[in-house]
Amino acid sequence: MVTRLDPALAAYCETHRQEHLAELQRWIAIPSVSADPQADGEIRRCAATIVDRLDALGMHARILETGGNPLAYGEWLGAPGKPTVLIYGHYDVQPADPPALWHSPPFEGVVRDGKIFGRGAVDDKGQVVMHLAALEAHLVTRGALPINVKVIVEGEEEIGSPNFEAALARYRHEFTADLAIVSDTAVYSEGKPSLTTSTRGLIHWEVVVHGPDCDVHSGYYGGVVRNPIEALAQMIAELKDADGRVAVPGFYDGVSELPPQQLAELRALEFDEAREAAALGVSELAGERGRLPLERMWFRPTLECNGIWGGYQGPGQKTIIPSRACAKLSARLVGDQDPERIKAAVAEFIARVAPTGVRVEIESFGGVRAVRTSRDHPVVAAAARAMEAGFGKAPIFIGTGGSIGPVASFDRVLGLPQVMIGVGLPDDQIHAPNEKFTLSQFFGGILTMAQLYDELAAMPTRD
Amino acid sequence: MVTRLDPALAAYCETHRQEHLAELQRWIAIPSVSADPQADGEIRRCAATIVDRLDALGMHARILETGGNPLAYGEWLGAPGKPTVLIYGHYDVQPADPPALWHSPPFEGVVRDGKIFGRGAVDDKGQVVMHLAALEAHLVTRGALPINVKVIVEGEEEIGSPNFEAALARYRHEFTADLAIVSDTAVYSEGKPSLTTSTRGLIHWEVVVHGPDCDVHSGYYGGVVRNPIEALAQMIAELKDADGRVAVPGFYDGVSELPPQQLAELRALEFDEAREAAALGVSELAGERGRLPLERMWFRPTLECNGIWGGYQGPGQKTIIPSRACAKLSARLVGDQDPERIKAAVAEFIARVAPTGVRVEIESFGGVRAVRTSRDHPVVAAAARAMEAGFGKAPIFIGTGGSIGPVASFDRVLGLPQVMIGVGLPDDQIHAPNEKFTLSQFFGGILTMAQLYDELAAMPTRD
Repeated sequence: MVTRLDPALAAYCETHRQEHLAELQRWIAIPSVSADPQADGEIRRCAATIVDRLDALGMHARILETGGNPLAYGEWLGAPGKPTVLIYGHYDVQPADPPALWHSPPFEGVVRDGKIFGRGAVDDKGQVVMHLAALEAHLVTRGALPINVKVIVEGEEEIGSPNFEAALARYRHEFTADLAIVSDTAVYSEGKPSLTTSTRGLIHWEVVVHGPDCDVHSGYYGGVVRNPIEALAQMIAELKDADGRVAVPGFYDGVSELPPQQLAELRALEFDEAREAAALGVSELAGERGRLPLERMWFRPTLECNGIWGGYQGPGQKTIIPSRACAKLSARLVGDQDPERIKAAVAEFIARVAPTGVRVEIESFGGVRAVRTSRDHPVVAAAARAMEAGFGKAPIFIGTGGSIGPVASFDRVLGLPQVMIGVGLPDDQIHAPNEKFTLSQFFGGILTMAQLYDELAAMPTRD
Repeated sequence: MVTRLDPALAAYCETHRQEHLAELQRWIAIPSVSADPQADGEIRRCAATIVDRLDALGMHARILETGGNPLAYGEWLGAPGKPTVLIYGHYDVQPADPPALWHSPPFEGVVRDGKIFGRGAVDDKGQVVMHLAALEAHLVTRGALPINVKVIVEGEEEIGSPNFEAALARYRHEFTADLAIVSDTAVYSEGKPSLTTSTRGLIHWEVVVHGPDCDVHSGYYGGVVRNPIEALAQMIAELKDADGRVAVPGFYDGVSELPPQQLAELRALEFDEAREAAALGVSELAGERGRLPLERMWFRPTLECNGIWGGYQGPGQKTIIPSRACAKLSARLVGDQDPERIKAAVAEFIARVAPTGVRVEIESFGGVRAVRTSRDHPVVAAAARAMEAGFGKAPIFIGTGGSIGPVASFDRVLGLPQVMIGVGLPDDQIHAPNEKFTLSQFFGGILTMAQLYDELAAMPTRD
């Protein structure tokens, strides 16, 4: 049974495509680059533009100050007895560096070949515009929404949402909801509508290996002083076994094997290893032996070294045994892995495998847990029906290897069920030059969201 | 039998101590820092001062241009049928950084507590002054030298003698000799006069491990892309076994075990491991298991990582798998290890142990061989007798873990027998603030060199 869109909603969306596209162009034209310390004016102009737009829709809208970049907030609470849905997106964007690699100006929103190009086109301005267009379709054609809606558009997602959890506490009323909708992800591929039902968690370490008090002459002391770089390299090498498995005891506690059906689904997805390797510029893919690439990317934890340094790094040679060597490590977590326990287990392991003759300092940071939404949850079933209505095809279920801080916060702090329903494509070049949003995905996304609100109207409320 | 100094020479040296010290002070006052690109004027002033001094001694003296800092050269060839001895030293010095840590101005040569403090006091101006004082004693008291002498004072030793080998070729006549005397080393400890009979060789590598074409997101690609830092760490960890031995096949080709007598001599030398470790700021010494510390420092080859870098090294976290990771390695060589073969063997080994999914580039540099002088060589026996005359005690034989480029050039290019007869002390703080030369070593060194020329007069000549 294919879900049918309300013809009036569909017709409205169809006849207002140019207006919705023009709105996205206006948003792209505001360079709200959160990483740029000079961009405060543009950040606030973008937040104000969104508040004005929410206000024009008839939603009670306002700026919520966070101490950093503000949240743009709007609410429509005229559906008593119906669920309250929190729609999350972000209006800040990545820098457009390097500008020379863009084929059209990054802050213009140029349309060509059925795509709109510009920084933020799909990450995430376009996906927020999509929701506002769908809300407009409801409000104009019916004079009301089928559910209560709170729209939160963040301004610091691209810099790690440093003020988001404090805002959750400060604006308890505004964040109270029955479920959250997050549209900041992509589908598996064009023609394969998808719902993301898991994100990985994220924790960090910094390791400093101390050798002699100062750099010493490698001629006079070579042979009697433990080299901190060598010690650090040995410690990093101990972290994984020959099969690419993390060797830290307890690391896999809370990691479940995928059920056979889900493995079969992953196998059924097209994934061309050779093409992927070629696109990355490597001779072959790597990772845990005996597991599928998509399993490794979405459903297995990782432990990576993100940076390393020590000793002489300049031109030519300097014959020293350095005083210290340092590394930054991070892990992506899945399932029920406990961030605090993993942080401690890895730190203990590193200290234990350190050779004698050096002193090791380890600090750990962060604590984002993995988030999973059961595909049996009614919210996900509703989203699946909506996506089928919007794209004419039932979605598949996928994971993402990334970590979305606000998604983890909604899960951990607010305990909200949530649906990650994004419609970007894998080749959208997010964070890179020539970011784009394919228009068929954009317009299909508007129809999807319009249907989603109707589907959610049937959900039970929190009380 | 204790060798007796010629009483006239001894008396001359005794009565001219103040003049010899004043000369060293004048040399220290010239900041001939070869690493300083602004110091060209001081470099040339220092070379000219030495040439003037050699000229005043009655030696035919001149500047030898090298394309870089010049050599100061002087010769006295009035002893037909006697050996020609090349005396090598250097007039350039290390920078005096950081000046704030000096207790007296680095370029003044302040005398206190029986020591002269200043940059270059012992490394190597003081040891050159020592020879010129001894030559003066001969020339003044007898009107002649017992041997033919060529003095070469280099201006680029502290920056790796980049123009020295070219100068050997260009000034073939000036470098023709029967043997070389190098006074740029230290004795084992005060009260233990020593002759250095070996230096280690030195070669270098740079390793670049290439992963993906650009840094990639550790969430999206963590689990399918080989991390170049991890790969490099594994490769470095493979270089040595659990006993600290280099695991590269062929690495120890040309390395001999020390004869039992020499091991016994090393055991007889005082070496307090705990005190040495404490001075370095480490909990314990490290290195090849089952070998003496002095054996490891002087007579065993090493393979060290002098620098490493890759990925994100700034504050906070950046969740990337980096595009590449790099390391600088170097080895100290002993015995008959062949630099070219070791360079190739290590490069092949690194390439072989590299995991799949990365591409490795290795470049190698340098080619200084280890140098050994047999202690049975008549030159060494002569030096031992001279040192006994100068310090009242027969010297012991020691090695050095460092590499002296010119020593290797004399050995390899000119095939000269040579004697390393330096009189510095291990606590002289060379290359560090508060460099000093203990005056009893300086004056004992002058007597030693005065006697050495007489001892060498009995040596056979080259023809």
